[in-house]
Amino acid sequence: MAEPDLRRRLCAEALGTGMLVAGVVGSGIMAEQLTGDVALALLANTIATGAILAVLISILGPISGGHFNPAVTLVFALRKELSARDGAAYVLCQVGGGILGTLAAHLMFALPLIQASTHVRSGGAQWFSEVVAAFGLVAVILAGIRFERTAVPWLVGLYITAAYWFTASTSFANPAVAISRALTDTFSGIRPIDVPGFITAQIAGALLALALMSWLLRKPDTGDIPINPESQS
Amino acid sequence: MAEPDLRRRLCAEALGTGMLVAGVVGSGIMAEQLTGDVALALLANTIATGAILAVLISILGPISGGHFNPAVTLVFALRKELSARDGAAYVLCQVGGGILGTLAAHLMFALPLIQASTHVRSGGAQWFSEVVAAFGLVAVILAGIRFERTAVPWLVGLYITAAYWFTASTSFANPAVAISRALTDTFSGIRPIDVPGFITAQIAGALLALALMSWLLRKPDTGDIPINPESQS
Amino acid sequence: MAEPDLRRRLCAEALGTGMLVAGVVGSGIMAEQLTGDVALALLANTIATGAILAVLISILGPISGGHFNPAVTLVFALRKELSARDGAAYVLCQVGGGILGTLAAHLMFALPLIQASTHVRSGGAQWFSEVVAAFGLVAVILAGIRFERTAVPWLVGLYITAAYWFTASTSFANPAVAISRALTDTFSGIRPIDVPGFITAQIAGALLALALMSWLLRKPDTGDIPINPESQS
Amino acid sequence: MAEPDLRRRLCAEALGTGMLVAGVVGSGIMAEQLTGDVALALLANTIATGAILAVLISILGPISGGHFNPAVTLVFALRKELSARDGAAYVLCQVGGGILGTLAAHLMFALPLIQASTHVRSGGAQWFSEVVAAFGLVAVILAGIRFERTAVPWLVGLYITAAYWFTASTSFANPAVAISRALTDTFSGIRPIDVPGFITAQIAGALLALALMSWLLRKPDTGDIPINPESQS
Repeated sequence: MAEPDLRRRLCAEALGTGMLVAGVVGSGIMAEQLTGDVALALLANTIATGAILAVLISILGPISGGHFNPAVTLVFALRKELSARDGAAYVLCQVGGGILGTLAAHLMFALPLIQASTHVRSGGAQWFSEVVAAFGLVAVILAGIRFERTAVPWLVGLYITAAYWFTASTSFANPAVAISRALTDTFSGIRPIDVPGFITAQIAGALLALALMSWLLRKPDTGDIPINPESQS
Repeated sequence: MAEPDLRRRLCAEALGTGMLVAGVVGSGIMAEQLTGDVALALLANTIATGAILAVLISILGPISGGHFNPAVTLVFALRKELSARDGAAYVLCQVGGGILGTLAAHLMFALPLIQASTHVRSGGAQWFSEVVAAFGLVAVILAGIRFERTAVPWLVGLYITAAYWFTASTSFANPAVAISRALTDTFSGIRPIDVPGFITAQIAGALLALALMSWLLRKPDTGDIPINPESQS
Repeated sequence: MAEPDLRRRLCAEALGTGMLVAGVVGSGIMAEQLTGDVALALLANTIATGAILAVLISILGPISGGHFNPAVTLVFALRKELSARDGAAYVLCQVGGGILGTLAAHLMFALPLIQASTHVRSGGAQWFSEVVAAFGLVAVILAGIRFERTAVPWLVGLYITAAYWFTASTSFANPAVAISRALTDTFSGIRPIDVPGFITAQIAGALLALALMSWLLRKPDTGDIPINPESQS
Repeated sequence: MAEPDLRRRLCAEALGTGMLVAGVVGSGIMAEQLTGDVALALLANTIATGAILAVLISILGPISGGHFNPAVTLVFALRKELSARDGAAYVLCQVGGGILGTLAAHLMFALPLIQASTHVRSGGAQWFSEVVAAFGLVAVILAGIRFERTAVPWLVGLYITAAYWFTASTSFANPAVAISRALTDTFSGIRPIDVPGFITAQIAGALLALALMSWLLRKPDTGDIPINPESQS
């Protein structure tokens, strides 16, 4: 079956990651400019992020798969749904697009284009949070694809909406987004030096989910799990 | 029709209840750390809970039914959709998974792993609230399955979103979650001594809903309620 | 085609209106107990109301139509989709159920069961707000049924979510709910003496929507408006 | 295939734009009357706007396309899906309906009917924000129509929900709405003198999206992008 050529798919990944990061960074800037209540700022940041994520996966997913996330691309490469070469190109475009997203947010809010975050996000609790965050994200994606593919954008958007609050790290769960957020010294930033720890934890969580869900979602030898919603238990 | 074997179903119940409790407890901790306005904290807690609940039922429901709740498992056992033995195993995994969820939340927020709540939740108004909360939850599940099975995850998520606010108890509506929340002395906790009252009320509400909805949803003798959405009144 | 007998339909209307009012009144009480910021209280009230409304119409709509609102029942009676006798019975059950909903909310929050609101809601701006609110509600219902029946619960829930904020009256839009809210001296109350003005405005708005939408939604003489989503412009 | 006659389509555009503007302006008035926290006011404004937008496109889209926005009408005219004459009539009705929406909001809140905003919204950062906002809106609409037409109302509602926060201009993205909001000196207003800059930026963003998406969404020469959701990657 014909699928969009690689140029279009890479463009979709760059555009999607860029708009996602612009959404995360921009809404964080707006929120911290308007209120002194950090919970309220995070709530606005959460709602904007969950909403734009659901939208972007809906409109660009049919072109490129809508990963916008190197950890997700890695999982699909390990599942042999993407070649290593295409996967590497995806990751480059995600990181490049994400950085442009940060710049776009700075431009929209009339801030210096190039910044480095001073927001400390480090230590075991933060890393464990990122393991949990990425584990959940990949579990949602793999099970969503297995059982109700058309709902995946909404499930991912809602998952991140929740995970912003129940993880201590506010659930980055995405190496390209982590790198991009290192370049803004605003609400959603992360110190550049803290990025490697986050990325390591995110990949660990993604691989853990791949392992567990591969077992949990395996079709029984004697037949398929019913995927007709009318016959699910 | 082949369904997942019991090991996978129990794993899904434990994982789902664990992530649900981690979501409830974790988002409560985050919220009370960020704001002094209790309504804002509860709003964040509500949004995270409703969102993760819809996600978890969507992705794990096709495996185990997505109960994550001994009161719901009891209802399905009484409806003979689950054997007593399987039901008991479900409940054990829900409670075990839920407790692990509390521990995971503590780990993510660098809090002492083992705690006991000092949050008093007792008295007739609280118990009546839990009767209402569980009644509504089971009514939503039974009617949702009857009329629009694929919408059940969204209906349950939205119901709990509302019930957090319109019941004085913030709608635990779930014995496994109540036990797990007794083990955290944070925003969403409940004193261990108050748990039995909550569980009793939850089971009463669930049974009440089973009785009423069994009558309300009974198909007319002369034919079925039309379930084709095009022909519903 | 067999539909549920009248007893079940009336039970569904009473139960639905009762849970709707318990949701509105209960969440208002919770919100004003937790915060001094009225906008935050109204936001929580809004989210709870929109969510429970979508749920109730989803689960009870297939039984009774899910009116929970005498103005809506009037519109369906005028469209000859309900006999005058059944319509009158619907209205009685809506009002009765709604009042029980207020009592249930008071019981859940340990407040005096019987109260009368002192919240003034009167004057031309308030009445015009209720005309707009009910006009919009009935327009949403009629167009929703015409174009995408299964989405009606979500459309009504979202419409009320918005209308709580863009009308000065917070969009009661429902005579049974107005009567029930006269019996609580809490956040969502309305002075009993102000109820007739609200009901008159609500009925005017509903009739206006019936008139306009009957013209706007009329199928062209030369054929139908395409209702296949694939061919809509 | 028969479609509604032009009078009905124009009525739908006027009614939809009017209710949209009443929603935006009215919810802004309510919010600023109830709280001193600007972020909270914007959050309420956001939720009301996103919700009413999804509802209006759902119920009026099948009649007129549900543009409510001259920039969107321009895009469809350039795509030859609307004649220049009909497009011009659409725009007139959108602007007229929008202005009536502002008046209705003032009437509902007992404010002077005719006002001129003093809210400064000007400068490069604001204009760039409007380019981004309109770019994203048109990209969402074009891709949504291409891949999942029935989801367009929800995608647009969620996109605007996010864009209110991640653009510095709170994402007007709509010339008719900009003109209408110049006529209210309340929360959501814009100085009349700043409107031309906004409109220019909005049209630029819309054309940019038309250009990029026409390439990105072009069907491969060797076959179609699979539009069956079951076979999307």
